[in-house]
Amino acid sequence: MPTATIEKWDFFEASFEGPATGNPFLEISFEAVFSQANRKIRVPGFYDGEGTYRVRFMPDAEGEWTWRTSSTTQALDGKEGSFTVSAPSPGNHGPVSVSNRFHFAYADGTPYFPFGTTCYAWTHQPLGMQQETLATLKQARFNKIRMGVFPKDYPFNENEPLKDIYTRDTEGRLDFDRPNPAAFRHFESQILRLRDMGIEADVIVFHPYDRWGYADMTAEQDFRYVAYLAARLGAFRNVWWSLANEYDFLLDTKPMSQWDRYFHILEENEAAPHLKSIHNGDQTMNFDHRKAWVSHVCIQNWDVKRTPEWREQYGKPVVNDEPEYEGNIWPSWGNITAEELTHRFWVTVMRGGYAGHGETYADPDDLIWWAKGGKLHGEAWKRIGFLRDILEEDVKNGLTPMGRNDTWPWSRISGARDGGVTYIYFGEHQPNQWTTGLPKDDGNYEVDLIDTWNMTVTPAKRIPPLVPHPTRHGAVVRGGKADAAFGVELPGKPYLAVRVRTI
Amino acid sequence: MPTATIEKWDFFEASFEGPATGNPFLEISFEAVFSQANRKIRVPGFYDGEGTYRVRFMPDAEGEWTWRTSSTTQALDGKEGSFTVSAPSPGNHGPVSVSNRFHFAYADGTPYFPFGTTCYAWTHQPLGMQQETLATLKQARFNKIRMGVFPKDYPFNENEPLKDIYTRDTEGRLDFDRPNPAAFRHFESQILRLRDMGIEADVIVFHPYDRWGYADMTAEQDFRYVAYLAARLGAFRNVWWSLANEYDFLLDTKPMSQWDRYFHILEENEAAPHLKSIHNGDQTMNFDHRKAWVSHVCIQNWDVKRTPEWREQYGKPVVNDEPEYEGNIWPSWGNITAEELTHRFWVTVMRGGYAGHGETYADPDDLIWWAKGGKLHGEAWKRIGFLRDILEEDVKNGLTPMGRNDTWPWSRISGARDGGVTYIYFGEHQPNQWTTGLPKDDGNYEVDLIDTWNMTVTPAKRIPPLVPHPTRHGAVVRGGKADAAFGVELPGKPYLAVRVRTI
Repeated sequence: MPTATIEKWDFFEASFEGPATGNPFLEISFEAVFSQANRKIRVPGFYDGEGTYRVRFMPDAEGEWTWRTSSTTQALDGKEGSFTVSAPSPGNHGPVSVSNRFHFAYADGTPYFPFGTTCYAWTHQPLGMQQETLATLKQARFNKIRMGVFPKDYPFNENEPLKDIYTRDTEGRLDFDRPNPAAFRHFESQILRLRDMGIEADVIVFHPYDRWGYADMTAEQDFRYVAYLAARLGAFRNVWWSLANEYDFLLDTKPMSQWDRYFHILEENEAAPHLKSIHNGDQTMNFDHRKAWVSHVCIQNWDVKRTPEWREQYGKPVVNDEPEYEGNIWPSWGNITAEELTHRFWVTVMRGGYAGHGETYADPDDLIWWAKGGKLHGEAWKRIGFLRDILEEDVKNGLTPMGRNDTWPWSRISGARDGGVTYIYFGEHQPNQWTTGLPKDDGNYEVDLIDTWNMTVTPAKRIPPLVPHPTRHGAVVRGGKADAAFGVELPGKPYLAVRVRTI
Repeated sequence: MPTATIEKWDFFEASFEGPATGNPFLEISFEAVFSQANRKIRVPGFYDGEGTYRVRFMPDAEGEWTWRTSSTTQALDGKEGSFTVSAPSPGNHGPVSVSNRFHFAYADGTPYFPFGTTCYAWTHQPLGMQQETLATLKQARFNKIRMGVFPKDYPFNENEPLKDIYTRDTEGRLDFDRPNPAAFRHFESQILRLRDMGIEADVIVFHPYDRWGYADMTAEQDFRYVAYLAARLGAFRNVWWSLANEYDFLLDTKPMSQWDRYFHILEENEAAPHLKSIHNGDQTMNFDHRKAWVSHVCIQNWDVKRTPEWREQYGKPVVNDEPEYEGNIWPSWGNITAEELTHRFWVTVMRGGYAGHGETYADPDDLIWWAKGGKLHGEAWKRIGFLRDILEEDVKNGLTPMGRNDTWPWSRISGARDGGVTYIYFGEHQPNQWTTGLPKDDGNYEVDLIDTWNMTVTPAKRIPPLVPHPTRHGAVVRGGKADAAFGVELPGKPYLAVRVRTI
């Protein structure tokens, strides 16, 4: 067998012919062990239909690797081979994982700041529209997308999916013991297209919005489905697992222990760890993100000034994927102004978290970005790209918010730091000058005024620091002296930020 | 002695000559009992300086009243008299008290919706400026004002007060055992001017912003001061007691039990009950407003969507007197936009609470409305007046919010009802149509669109009710049928409200 060469963090795939009769999904167990010197990694294989079995592996180290399969089925047992892993090509930074407790980085150390969007069912739309979605993503600056495996049945989402996720029996009924490999292959091909655009696929495993029966599979069927996903997608470096969109609306049929079990099955079946979280519906129903199998906080919450609270509560990166969406449809999670969504992104990021985008403008044909992809019609996405550019220009380790939720003045305005860069975001506040949080020494600083809506960065006018009249607050006297070496003059309008960089 | 006639809820005052030597404030005890038939009410008197003693009483019933003093000092003991109480004149509705659990009404049953402003130290400014403040209040639509007894030492508040609140000894030191009657007389005269304009005086008893020593009196001195206030001001129908502005910044010297004692002393010394509350500084330091001696919730909190939470937590009317102020000064509680303050008023009111206004635009001479009064320079006050007019047009019992804090969709947008009127306020949301919360029957309704910023009310365009595609949320299926008899078309811009009135 010729030795293949793949690059680090790409995936190696081997396929085999095996039994096609009976129900191979249930009856055939098959895995491989991948080895490099003494290191051994067990990787489950999967049935890809028509007698074909595959196993996929993402190597995380360069050099020679060997593999050997094992199965109770003779045709799939004892197969072996080897391959070579080369250095990653430019643009391949490896999978993303948690870094610096509240942040993320690629495996090669490059910081990763999630600026995600949401197209729940884009892979279930007509192929032309899927092409359009990819073309739009190419122009936007999103580096993550929330997308479901299953199709969606919901207002504005009444069309049939391109492919069933399970196969149909002779009477046309979905057989939830037989995944449809063609549907998974298509889903995978779109994940790989995203990968090549530098976009993480935040794969939503379950959701309640269903008319086909996917939300009502038995626990055993769910467990097999999750293991099948892990075997198929676990070797893709840009896959994140979102166990659910709005898991709490499924608690009547899938109890909490079952949700934990899904996480465990992923852990058991992944050759390489992926980021894992789960998204709530009701604002009071955050999952317990402290559990060890949850890598980061994924929430839906419009009250974005609470971001530091969630950081403290869970001690993990906070991704607020649904701080409401820009649009004008009737559901009230989907009709805030572009100004407000841009503002919520800035507040979230400047309090040490990450936010997610969605766009929900009414369309005569119900072609709405948030569910189907296609075109963007709004204004926030450009400002979100601008914010990403701002961050990537200077931030290395991730932003640490100034103060915490209830510390003056940082409960009212937002500010954050990383190394030599400080940002202060004023939002709905419009002070005519500012001092607090600016440098305390007379070092060399570059001070800029950022207009978050008009996307401009201009040098800020420095002024002498403010020396407030001293006032007593309990045992503390505030004021009487400046709390920074200089101040900045501000033009008295909302949605501004100040950036200070050490030269 | 000729029989005086006063109107109900006005105040009767009797004065007497007595000892002027020693320290009458400490040494002379003096009170009167006011009687109508078998009903008897004890009323403490007070020393008004220069040998004059007074007792004041606000009758709450028409007809004949008699009174008789008692004192250990012979000159003040056993004095008696009578007076007649006539019907109140137009505009005299009596004192305000809690009504319908979460709301307020005047004693004659007229609903009272607080739309207050803040001029902490306006009675300590030069008299010309005080006149200007009253002239401004005459044009605005505020019906409550927060104002301190003591002067204020704070950024933008560095001038000396018009009058000391205590007298000075021969060496010029304030003697906190000797109130300055002239200062109290002036304060009272301004409260009566407010009364005649229909404005409640929310009198702030203590605050931490002090350089004269008022914040550092002993507990005994504090207790006497509170009793003195009760004796002097307790007969004024437009007085509310705010025990403190930002009591939590005084906890180092005035422990919690002492704050409770102040409330008790007011209760002990008032002939007629007044509304009583206390205002926090830090957002996490709400007073325990469940205590029986607190009549309503007074808070400072920018997070106005939480209003229903405070209603539930305390079970009393919620007055958020400081949801941040319109302005551009550097402190971040004082620099939100007019749009944002107007929005916070609408959110608060449409969630069953009441909000307070303040204006803090920087001024070269530090003449800022929030502390000194004078002129208004902003834009929110007009919109707040418009909101008051809207409410007074239709609301009788007070608004009950729809849903509670976390119930969809009312955690995101705001809506409230009273009798035959329903309001839905969209704020930062801009749906292109709306149905939820509109009437479920085909009755006769007048449906209007309110532009809260432009202050317009126009007939709304009715459309067929929305019938959303049904979706499962746990055991609940939403959609599939309309949740109202009709919908309204909306123009897709922020800061709009819909009003539905039963004809």
